[in-house]
This record gives sequence, structure tokens and C-alpha cells, in this order.
Amino acid sequence: MELREAINARFSYRGSYAQQPVPRAHLREIMEAGLAAPSGCNKQTVSLIGVDDAELLQKLLSVMKPATCPTVTAMICVLTKRRIAYTDGNGVERCFAVQDYAAAIENMLLTITSLGYASCWIEGHITDADEQGKQMAQMLGVPEEYDLICVLPVGVPLDAQKRVWKREFEKRAWFNGFQTEA
Amino acid sequence: MELREAINARFSYRGSYAQQPVPRAHLREIMEAGLAAPSGCNKQTVSLIGVDDAELLQKLLSVMKPATCPTVTAMICVLTKRRIAYTDGNGVERCFAVQDYAAAIENMLLTITSLGYASCWIEGHITDADEQGKQMAQMLGVPEEYDLICVLPVGVPLDAQKRVWKREFEKRAWFNGFQTEA
Repeated sequence: MELREAINARFSYRGSYAQQPVPRAHLREIMEAGLAAPSGCNKQTVSLIGVDDAELLQKLLSVMKPATCPTVTAMICVLTKRRIAYTDGNGVERCFAVQDYAAAIENMLLTITSLGYASCWIEGHITDADEQGKQMAQMLGVPEEYDLICVLPVGVPLDAQKRVWKREFEKRAWFNGFQTEA
Repeated sequence: MELREAINARFSYRGSYAQQPVPRAHLREIMEAGLAAPSGCNKQTVSLIGVDDAELLQKLLSVMKPATCPTVTAMICVLTKRRIAYTDGNGVERCFAVQDYAAAIENMLLTITSLGYASCWIEGHITDADEQGKQMAQMLGVPEEYDLICVLPVGVPLDAQKRVWKREFEKRAWFNGFQTEA
């Protein structure tokens, strides 16, 4: 799929998924796209676990409340390891781990779209007071120095859903100054 | 350009740029791709300013030390506005502004690549103790509630440069568990 088409077709899908497996080759292609994203000072803070084992997947899905994607047959779990990129002139340790995993996730969402699947960036409940990511990390044998901060379901969508409304270009982007004429 | 080709061709370019203007239509296409990225709870925290005015560009470039892209003829400045997405069960205000702008930047870097240009995600010195972003924001008339956190040069590369080395897939990604066989 053309890049522009993928960018415009991607949206957050929260419907049912077809009960068919996702080929391992597709999961790998999606994960490779994630790892090809840039990382601050090339610290490569992102690691990934693809899940297509039915029993393990059900265990992981049982943790997720609300159930955002209970019918999905494959999932990618995004791990981050806090690596310091550099220390700035005020002695502040700069870490770009959030930027790194967000860029990796966007690459994966676009690739998921280009392969005809749907997905959704599920992060809030994974990392907030619910701590669902910690429970899932334990199930996957993830060492303590990594955080599981996001899951991406991967599957064939069954429901017709559309992307959410976004403000017009002219209200969010300008040339040669803030809120100058576009 | 195909999505996969763009993902694999993108890299951080730090060389010289050709002295030719970037058409406004290309800048707009790149910025539209940025705004098409997802945002946490659809808060749309990202705004963009494209710069192709030669005089203004030179003023902005003069702030940047070290001079990462002194010869570029166009640039996109990325603004973020801290909007709270929701308050979690522990009373913690969740904000996904960093994730939002990182996804937008990745969409823009891919689109820049697909149009035959080069770029580089410049964020560290913009937001660290150097506070270069604050000086640039003032030059652009950006209100205080926005932060200028990244600039993306856009131009035709003159030097042969390659992407940095990355660890192998098998050392960063696995299936159905941490560091299980790929």
C-alpha cells in the first residue's frame, strides 16, 4: 500500500475481529516496521513480543478491562527500557523512550493497515492506576527493567467503523508563524 | 512510495542540502500526514508551523547549536499543547502529548522520505537546558501555552549517508514470551 493511503486509512478500531489466525510472517513484518523506527541517540529502547498462541492470548485479554478487543486472534505487546540518551547542561538526564515507542507504534499501525488488518493503540489502562501492563508482563516473563506499556491487537475487522473527527488543517497548521494565513 | 519502502528508507540525515526551494504543496502534504496521526483520547495536541521564508528560516537556524542543518531551505516546527486526556483511579492526570507528537513526527519523516527529501528528528537541544525551542517559539509568535519541541528540516540531500546500525530482530523481538525463540 502507498504510504499516503496507509496514513489516511489508519484509525482506532474498537469492533469485533474475524476468527482467523494472523500469519506469523505478517506479525513479523509488522514488528520489523516497528523496530525500523528512529530512536533518540539510537538507544533502541523498544522491544516487542508478538502473541499468537491462543491460550496465552486469552490469558492476556482477560486482564484487559474494559475489554477493548476480546475477539482478536493476535496481538503485539510493546516493551520499553528506560535508557538515558544524554545528560544536559543542567544535569538533567534526557530519555526519549516515550518518543521511541510512539514512533515504533505508529510504524506498526501503518503496516497493520497496509496488510488489511485493523488495530487500536491501547495504552491508557495498560499503564495507569489499573497497572494491567504489569500483570501482562508477568505472564510473558518480561524482566523488571522493561515496562509493558502498550498492546496492539491485530486482526481482520468485522464491523464498519470510521476514524474520529479531527480539526481542520487551518486550525492546527500554518506557514511562517503561528496562526498566520495558510 | 510504498509504505514498507518508506519505513526502510527513512534515516536521520545530517549532511548538506541542495539550495532549491521545497514547494509549498509538498510542505503541506508532509504536515497533513503529521496531523493524520492518532492522538491519545483524540486530544489533537499537535500543531505545526512550516517555514519556507528565507529570512525567517535563517533567524531560526541561527539559534540551533550545534548547527545540524544550516543549509536547509525549509523546516517544520512541531508544537505541543499539554492537554489532559483523563484522570486515572489514583487521581493522576494522564497526558499523551509526547506520544501524540512522536507519532505525528514519524508520519512526517516517512512522508518526507517518500517525496525524495531527507530530514532528521531534532529534539534534544531544542528542549534541554539550551532552550532553543523557546527562542524559536518567540520568533514565530507562538503563545505560551504551546511548546516548540522539535524541528524537522526538509530538503534534497547532497551527501551520501546511511542509517545507523540497529540490533538484530532476534535481540529485540520474540513471540509468545520474552526472549523465547523467534
